[in-house]
Amino acid sequence: MKEYVLGIDLGGTKIDACLMTEDGEIWKSITVPTLADEGAEAVIERIKGCIFELIKYANQDEIISVGIAVPGVIDAERRVVKHLPNLPSWKDVPLPGIIQNVLQIPVAMENDANAAALGEYLYGSGIGIDNFIYITISTGIGGGIILNGKLFSGEWGNAGEIGHITINHKGPKCSCGSYGCWEAYASGTALARFAREGILNGRETIIKDKAQDEGIKAEHIFDAAKKDDKFALELIEKQGYYLGVGLANVVNAFNPRLIVIGGGLTNEWEMFYDNMINTMEIRAFKTNTEGLKIVKTLLGSKVGMVGAAAVGWSLIKKK
Amino acid sequence: MKEYVLGIDLGGTKIDACLMTEDGEIWKSITVPTLADEGAEAVIERIKGCIFELIKYANQDEIISVGIAVPGVIDAERRVVKHLPNLPSWKDVPLPGIIQNVLQIPVAMENDANAAALGEYLYGSGIGIDNFIYITISTGIGGGIILNGKLFSGEWGNAGEIGHITINHKGPKCSCGSYGCWEAYASGTALARFAREGILNGRETIIKDKAQDEGIKAEHIFDAAKKDDKFALELIEKQGYYLGVGLANVVNAFNPRLIVIGGGLTNEWEMFYDNMINTMEIRAFKTNTEGLKIVKTLLGSKVGMVGAAAVGWSLIKKK
Repeated sequence: MKEYVLGIDLGGTKIDACLMTEDGEIWKSITVPTLADEGAEAVIERIKGCIFELIKYANQDEIISVGIAVPGVIDAERRVVKHLPNLPSWKDVPLPGIIQNVLQIPVAMENDANAAALGEYLYGSGIGIDNFIYITISTGIGGGIILNGKLFSGEWGNAGEIGHITINHKGPKCSCGSYGCWEAYASGTALARFAREGILNGRETIIKDKAQDEGIKAEHIFDAAKKDDKFALELIEKQGYYLGVGLANVVNAFNPRLIVIGGGLTNEWEMFYDNMINTMEIRAFKTNTEGLKIVKTLLGSKVGMVGAAAVGWSLIKKK
Repeated sequence: MKEYVLGIDLGGTKIDACLMTEDGEIWKSITVPTLADEGAEAVIERIKGCIFELIKYANQDEIISVGIAVPGVIDAERRVVKHLPNLPSWKDVPLPGIIQNVLQIPVAMENDANAAALGEYLYGSGIGIDNFIYITISTGIGGGIILNGKLFSGEWGNAGEIGHITINHKGPKCSCGSYGCWEAYASGTALARFAREGILNGRETIIKDKAQDEGIKAEHIFDAAKKDDKFALELIEKQGYYLGVGLANVVNAFNPRLIVIGGGLTNEWEMFYDNMINTMEIRAFKTNTEGLKIVKTLLGSKVGMVGAAAVGWSLIKKK
């Protein structure tokens, strides 16, 4: 008999769902828009819709568990989604229980970066590496921790919130309520904010032309830098520095063998890589950096979906 | 047959060594001065002297392993002491091998905060709590991590260096070579530095009278604060704030159930506790702080010796 896990990656703009075998083969996948503005109940209905669509592609007894990845804070003990920054209507939603009632099979949930870490461990850049940290750098910064060959998600499911390690205690207010978090300095959102601030202060740059009528995004800054725009190049240098500061914190706290970096900003990895690594090496314990490897995600844009399914598999196989 | 582990806690000023049973009973202990200025070889001879003294108190086959705690950076893979800030002549010293040659029994080594964490887990405030962080606040700030009931010391033995998480990337240079580390803001040494800086800037205070001819130490500031010295009270308020900033980082990174705090500054715990906790609660994820407990060390000044012996026991019992 074939066996599948149903993986659901709930994102701020889209829901990716799939049936995946234990070998990591995606048997069938679908993507629907999240339409978060319509509220939690409507989004849950769309998640159920994905499930009903996918189960057509297997016999019901072939689907043995569900893994869910959500973009925010959970309470693993009470099995609820506590708070999702990009889906503000989600408060204390018992999502695993709701899905379990639909399918009558075991359901596991993790936050998206933790799920991605497990995905990279079982199917990506982390295969065979028992101590590593996955870091996603996109609109925010998230982390997932594999220790001794297991996902370590902490006491209530929220370990690895390394984007919310303060790198400047007097820094700007962060979306999490704290101040000067790594995310507030080194995420794509922060990069765009620094660009807007510079432009308001009269810096000459073609970033605004790249953005045209849209708001300025990280990608516009990378585009401008490729045209040798001085301000854009400065911003990306600073971005590499801030990434390195936070990486050094991670390296000193966890002493991992490997760091896998995913998220949208890895598309432009070459532009900030050297500065990021140099900064980290200056600031972190030498013994902790000498043998350390830092690589890009192997799963790329599939990491969310594969990670969610990996969470389902680890529930069954206790990997 | 009775069984003992020989625990050796190498400190900057003294060496504590003991024979300890698996129940945590200290059968015999001795303390000798480190005299670090005499160099690594002389200190190793004094460690051996402790061993020869202690083995008189048991039959040789009753001593089944040795646990060593060292105050600095190790390379667990190569089994060497890499660098000890307060014993500068120690560079790449294969201490476990040297001791193993003397006694012909298994020897394990950890850094002192990691060893202390294991001591608190097996014999102190952490008994039965499978996810917790031990933090020592004294001249420096160190950390040890118990995850899933095991000491997590990272790939090369240096996980938990939370004192060297940057809390201000533009901050003062730290002893580790980085900038703005937590330790450089919230340790006893930092507290004394802030006091000296204020006095140089003309702040009125009785701290200097308390210190008399000695250099200013953290204890002089606490003494002055107890006499309602305004500057000393301000310094301790700031200390509580900085401690809270770093605690929030730990809570967001590890999501522990318990934090055990040891080290010299816990003697004055009441004077900074409220401000430390308030700051942490403002800055950390609410889900991670709601059920979190923060307590003082139960082992107190014995934590180093008991921790070292615990490292020896965990080698044998794979606890």
